[in-house]
Amino acid sequence: MTLNTSTPHDLSFTIFGTGALGGFYGSRLLAGGSTVRFIAHSDVDFIRREGLRVDSPLGDQHHQPVEVYRDSDVIPRSDVVCVGLKSTQNHRLVELLEPLIGEGTLILNLQNGLTMEEELVEAFPQAVVVAGLCFLCSNKVGPGHITHLDYGLVSFAPFDERGREQIPALMAAFSAGGVKVESQPSLPQARWRKLAWNIPFNGLSVLLDVDTNRIMADPDGRVLAEQLMAEVALGAETCGVPFDEGFMPKLMQITEAMTPYAPSMRLDYLAKRELEIEFMYERPLREVSKRGVRLPAVEAVARQLRFVDRHNRDQAR
Amino acid sequence: MTLNTSTPHDLSFTIFGTGALGGFYGSRLLAGGSTVRFIAHSDVDFIRREGLRVDSPLGDQHHQPVEVYRDSDVIPRSDVVCVGLKSTQNHRLVELLEPLIGEGTLILNLQNGLTMEEELVEAFPQAVVVAGLCFLCSNKVGPGHITHLDYGLVSFAPFDERGREQIPALMAAFSAGGVKVESQPSLPQARWRKLAWNIPFNGLSVLLDVDTNRIMADPDGRVLAEQLMAEVALGAETCGVPFDEGFMPKLMQITEAMTPYAPSMRLDYLAKRELEIEFMYERPLREVSKRGVRLPAVEAVARQLRFVDRHNRDQAR
Repeated sequence: MTLNTSTPHDLSFTIFGTGALGGFYGSRLLAGGSTVRFIAHSDVDFIRREGLRVDSPLGDQHHQPVEVYRDSDVIPRSDVVCVGLKSTQNHRLVELLEPLIGEGTLILNLQNGLTMEEELVEAFPQAVVVAGLCFLCSNKVGPGHITHLDYGLVSFAPFDERGREQIPALMAAFSAGGVKVESQPSLPQARWRKLAWNIPFNGLSVLLDVDTNRIMADPDGRVLAEQLMAEVALGAETCGVPFDEGFMPKLMQITEAMTPYAPSMRLDYLAKRELEIEFMYERPLREVSKRGVRLPAVEAVARQLRFVDRHNRDQAR
Repeated sequence: MTLNTSTPHDLSFTIFGTGALGGFYGSRLLAGGSTVRFIAHSDVDFIRREGLRVDSPLGDQHHQPVEVYRDSDVIPRSDVVCVGLKSTQNHRLVELLEPLIGEGTLILNLQNGLTMEEELVEAFPQAVVVAGLCFLCSNKVGPGHITHLDYGLVSFAPFDERGREQIPALMAAFSAGGVKVESQPSLPQARWRKLAWNIPFNGLSVLLDVDTNRIMADPDGRVLAEQLMAEVALGAETCGVPFDEGFMPKLMQITEAMTPYAPSMRLDYLAKRELEIEFMYERPLREVSKRGVRLPAVEAVARQLRFVDRHNRDQAR
């Protein structure tokens, strides 16, 4: 279901992580009339002085002044806290979110991977947890400056019934900002369907040092992507959420039709940032392995990624 | 069994492929008193003029004059034809060997991989086929100039009973030149045992862009090597030649103790030469798959290698 309405709404948002993802969606929420508070890291002073720029086919935006905070500041409570940090920071996530979460606060997790929502629910039983799976191509190009290239759909999936009730209001707020939205009934299914793309194309783009179009154009690249995707399908089935017939061919077809695209893990690798291997590869492997099933090619790719990630960051020091 | 005798012998040898491998063993056979004819490609004129140099811990050699031919020359028949060409040339091998093979000619195949001997026997039923598995670290450093760094053991394994009878004379000739020799009763077992090292370490050294010591020093590198080796063990078992218990840990231990070592496939990759994927990966996978078994991580590595090989050589053009 794709909505594109401008239903009235009055949610306030705190965006944790003002990067390519958080900066873009925060900007769209502001454009849609929501109250938005940003938490940034290195860019706080810059954004306070110069504002936040987001160039986008949806219209270039220059937000100034912007309500922006350091994570150590006292930050007014919002109805919704959007998690836009890289999952490589998740060992600090609970501590960082703690001051922002009250009774009934809605945590909207925008990260890639598996099992993040379970950890948030365990740490914050007083909160309501919803996943927002982002299909977005945007880059941070400088301090307080984001370039949105293409896509942007957010697919909402609730952790539980309390979350399910909140999704219409979330959809209205994002939609008011021109963001395409949809909702999916099952969080595990939504997460595994996203992994079906992320596991092959993020990993291969790093290991083969190419964008998605080069993978799709090469006979071995395609077969490799299909081999990994088939193992992810086995993983999904093992976890009780099998893919529909036709899902994988459709995903390959969509990828084929995409403009040349550098997945986020490739951008992280090129910038010598830590790769999101833990939540995108290790956690899915762990969930499947708990149920007695192995995904050998995905395991091999995950190990190669850990190897190249370690050497990549060693060289950067 | 390791012999180091100087039993008299009177075999003559034609070395097909005067590179790091053929050049080294040809030099040792000359040093041991055998008649040796070399077939070279680009270096014929140079070697005719300047001779063949082989620097080695076994003693530096400068052979001049050397009996060296182009493959299009009329070449006197020898008792033994040693195949030292890269297996990437094997689509031309039968045609190239044809003029050299008579009734009872012994073909000694020094290549890496699987199924080369079967193809030679099929093409040359009048010949006797023996495999010589080489454990050698040497490089071609310039025209007619080879540097032997370490190792050099040749492990002989017969294709059939006719070959088995010839092995003592072969061992005597190599041994007379200071080469360590041994024999193995089963060709499939010998080939699979060698693949247990070649499949993990050749492929990973290319894909991870490191020498063996860096693979062994990294926790994920080690586990990757072990994962691939375990799949090769399954392949060997599927083909009826299971590894002994303790074989794999011993192989890891030997690799650990080696000096930093660039496997031949890594040297080929760095020189932008075609990689020996067909005989080192595809043929073993095909033999196993015929018997209904899959080796998913080896398959993924083979596909990655084909991808990077294609792109590596595209860039070289």
